[in-house]
Amino acid sequence: MNAAYTELKRRLAEINDLQKARGVLSWDQQTMMPPRGAAVRAEQLATLDGIAHERFTSDEIGRLLDQLEGLEASQPYDSDEASLIRVTRRDWEKARRVPTDLRAELTRQASLALPVWIEARQKSDFDLFLPALRTNVELRHRYIDCFEPADNPYDVLLDDFERGMKTEEVAVVFERIKAEQGQLIADLRDRAADVAPPDGPFPIEKQREFELSVIERFGFNREAWRIDPTVHPFASGGGINDIRITSRYVENSLEGLFATMHETGHGLYEHQVAPELERTPLARGTSLGLHESQSRLWENLVGRSLPFWRFFFPRLQETFADSLGGMELDEFYPRVNTVRPSLIRVEADEATYNMHIILRFELEQEILAGNVALEELPEVWRARMEQYLGIEVPDDRRGVLQDVHWAGGHIGYFPTYALGNVISAQIWERILLDIPDLYGQFEEGEFGQLRAWLGEHLHRHGRKFTPKETIERVCGGPLDPEPYLRYLRDKLGGIHGLATAKA
Amino acid sequence: MNAAYTELKRRLAEINDLQKARGVLSWDQQTMMPPRGAAVRAEQLATLDGIAHERFTSDEIGRLLDQLEGLEASQPYDSDEASLIRVTRRDWEKARRVPTDLRAELTRQASLALPVWIEARQKSDFDLFLPALRTNVELRHRYIDCFEPADNPYDVLLDDFERGMKTEEVAVVFERIKAEQGQLIADLRDRAADVAPPDGPFPIEKQREFELSVIERFGFNREAWRIDPTVHPFASGGGINDIRITSRYVENSLEGLFATMHETGHGLYEHQVAPELERTPLARGTSLGLHESQSRLWENLVGRSLPFWRFFFPRLQETFADSLGGMELDEFYPRVNTVRPSLIRVEADEATYNMHIILRFELEQEILAGNVALEELPEVWRARMEQYLGIEVPDDRRGVLQDVHWAGGHIGYFPTYALGNVISAQIWERILLDIPDLYGQFEEGEFGQLRAWLGEHLHRHGRKFTPKETIERVCGGPLDPEPYLRYLRDKLGGIHGLATAKA
Repeated sequence: MNAAYTELKRRLAEINDLQKARGVLSWDQQTMMPPRGAAVRAEQLATLDGIAHERFTSDEIGRLLDQLEGLEASQPYDSDEASLIRVTRRDWEKARRVPTDLRAELTRQASLALPVWIEARQKSDFDLFLPALRTNVELRHRYIDCFEPADNPYDVLLDDFERGMKTEEVAVVFERIKAEQGQLIADLRDRAADVAPPDGPFPIEKQREFELSVIERFGFNREAWRIDPTVHPFASGGGINDIRITSRYVENSLEGLFATMHETGHGLYEHQVAPELERTPLARGTSLGLHESQSRLWENLVGRSLPFWRFFFPRLQETFADSLGGMELDEFYPRVNTVRPSLIRVEADEATYNMHIILRFELEQEILAGNVALEELPEVWRARMEQYLGIEVPDDRRGVLQDVHWAGGHIGYFPTYALGNVISAQIWERILLDIPDLYGQFEEGEFGQLRAWLGEHLHRHGRKFTPKETIERVCGGPLDPEPYLRYLRDKLGGIHGLATAKA
Repeated sequence: MNAAYTELKRRLAEINDLQKARGVLSWDQQTMMPPRGAAVRAEQLATLDGIAHERFTSDEIGRLLDQLEGLEASQPYDSDEASLIRVTRRDWEKARRVPTDLRAELTRQASLALPVWIEARQKSDFDLFLPALRTNVELRHRYIDCFEPADNPYDVLLDDFERGMKTEEVAVVFERIKAEQGQLIADLRDRAADVAPPDGPFPIEKQREFELSVIERFGFNREAWRIDPTVHPFASGGGINDIRITSRYVENSLEGLFATMHETGHGLYEHQVAPELERTPLARGTSLGLHESQSRLWENLVGRSLPFWRFFFPRLQETFADSLGGMELDEFYPRVNTVRPSLIRVEADEATYNMHIILRFELEQEILAGNVALEELPEVWRARMEQYLGIEVPDDRRGVLQDVHWAGGHIGYFPTYALGNVISAQIWERILLDIPDLYGQFEEGEFGQLRAWLGEHLHRHGRKFTPKETIERVCGGPLDPEPYLRYLRDKLGGIHGLATAKA
């Protein structure tokens, strides 16, 4: 093999080691670390970041990429070699554009803003957070200025999370969603208002046993995975065979089970990347949107489906006989498919979730364009929540201050959540064509063929293809909101007795 | 502050971050990591090692050290500044002498030898291990050749674990120990033979609760520590306020409790290093011998003392009423202070432990000098065990293959275990002069003054002083086996009814 390629791979493997080491340390920080370890851990993470960045943006990587133009051209587009060179070049050119001091400042400000945001949210005091937010926004402008002018400055930020996706493309899809989901919410407002999620009690130890019995059928196994409790569920890990998911549990809700299925979806994407890609920059999901399509697929299209519950509800009843012993599946199933506009994004049901995202997506663009003053955000937020979801925001804690993203400087991140929903349904329609018996398999507690399909069509490619290429390859067409809108209207309309739903 | 000093500190802090990150990843590997994560974790650890080594041995560190000669000379010997420069220079000069390819080969061979040793031990087949051992010994010779010729080639290896200590100094101490402990073992052979450790059953969950109640009084607290089960107990962590100990539990023994007290001793040494030394190369115990003095002190001089058990035995009885309800302290106390020559070092009692060490110390020197052929090791081992402990070795699994150290290339490491015992008793005599009421405090379950004494006289200095300097400072004299020999003879002789023991 080409010596330059071998050398590039060696260097990238070391950088990947640093990033994965960082991943495990960050997981440890949120699950295992004694609280007083926080200060020195922050330094360790910053050091690993800094060294990985310094090594990646080195001139030597650029020289190797130049030398490898011939190899890239000689290999098929989807080969490991061409993909590694192509993706690395794009990452390298992007990383080189950001001066080291700006990058350090972005990281530093995000760290500084975090505790400020925590306090501001606790006190529901937006003015406390305002200066930190202002600094973060200014820094994002400086970041945007590092790149060629785009049609929309928001494109630059979105590109960090969804390579090659344009604001305008997302906006078109979101406009359609906003209209249709807005209508669905209105149609179901009265019919579904009284259907509430099951409220237990569900003793937490039993929840954990039950969820294990579910995700083991999805593909979780103790040889290559672990699951632990945390405040905020997430998926992380040290490699393809070291997948770590977390979840959170409350006794009066099954939300932990759904969070666990969600994180298992993320974990499967990382776990099923082709082993040959391990220790390369291709060894992870291609974008946040695609990643979220996997988590939402397992959480909602699988985990809130009737066939899934035909298999698992009797088992759930057995586990929680006191709370569910007398309930019929007919009553339970609507209660895990509620439609109830609510204040908090992370608690939103399928019908209302995207509206939370669209609100933020629009606000972020207006902030960047200077069309909304930062000090007016709480007020604008309240007005939009009234407009999009018909609910009143009682305080900023449950309003504009609810999410951590802006404290971390993550502007451009939110849309990937809704893109995940959209893509999950596009993929789902493809799967149903390939596996006509899919729901029959769920009723038998069998998910192996679904997992294998996702591995074969999506997961094994890791980061070889851009999100748009991936959607084309997996779904046979471009980003399209219609499958998701059909899915929502059919399922939720059917459950809550809407005449227009498919029988 | 001097700009060169600031720059040196910054660079050392980054290197320290890499080493501590490695520490947490290694802890994770042994406690948390899913088994199939092992292969890629090994790469991550090697990468962190390699980068830390590359950065530390850089010319720039050497230039900074040169520039700082004036600062070092202008500051008191025990100042943070002079100590940091002095210790770093010594580490740097040593690290620079070993070529990168030899260092990589040492690491690689150690990794390769480990699974071979595991299999060889399992099969009790020394011939299987022999080639790997031969390679490790040859590599150690190459390593020794990197340094100025020493009086004894073993000095070079010992120096890695016990800075500045000479083989001859250790040999003199060990000769005395060998004679005296050999005599003690002979004197007690018949008297103590029937006194066996308590054998429970001790349900493991209750063991863990009980040991927590003990080590919380020693200084363990959940804000800055954690404890987890592992196959082989160890102490590790991510920083001064992120201390991680592990222990192992079997139902028919209290060995887990003693292992936990042992590791707590290691943890306290790291936890009580002065906070100003965090993220510097001074922020850890000064040597393995001094470290072991702390673990053995808490395990044995505290944890196997009568005053300790006067406080804890009633609580232990309450916890394990079924096994210990009818036992008197008079019967229990000898049973945690047994004298029974045995095959396995890590299970040895206080009277016999050092003999295991001396056997290895002598063998290692003979191996290096070529006075014993590697293929004869099993036979020589058997003969020495008969000679030193009067017991027959039934197979190599429980003989020459029992310890992992030689597989890892760690020749020169073993003596530090016995040095720890020796030093622990030297320190103890000093403490008893300063805290005459020490045992009275133990009887009240109070260990805070002992912990504070160790923090003040030893722990806070971290790695500022060499082992020999440290012993002089803490004990007021050089390494001396007599306190340990007095302690053993007084305690064990007293317990097992030897007339020569102090009343």
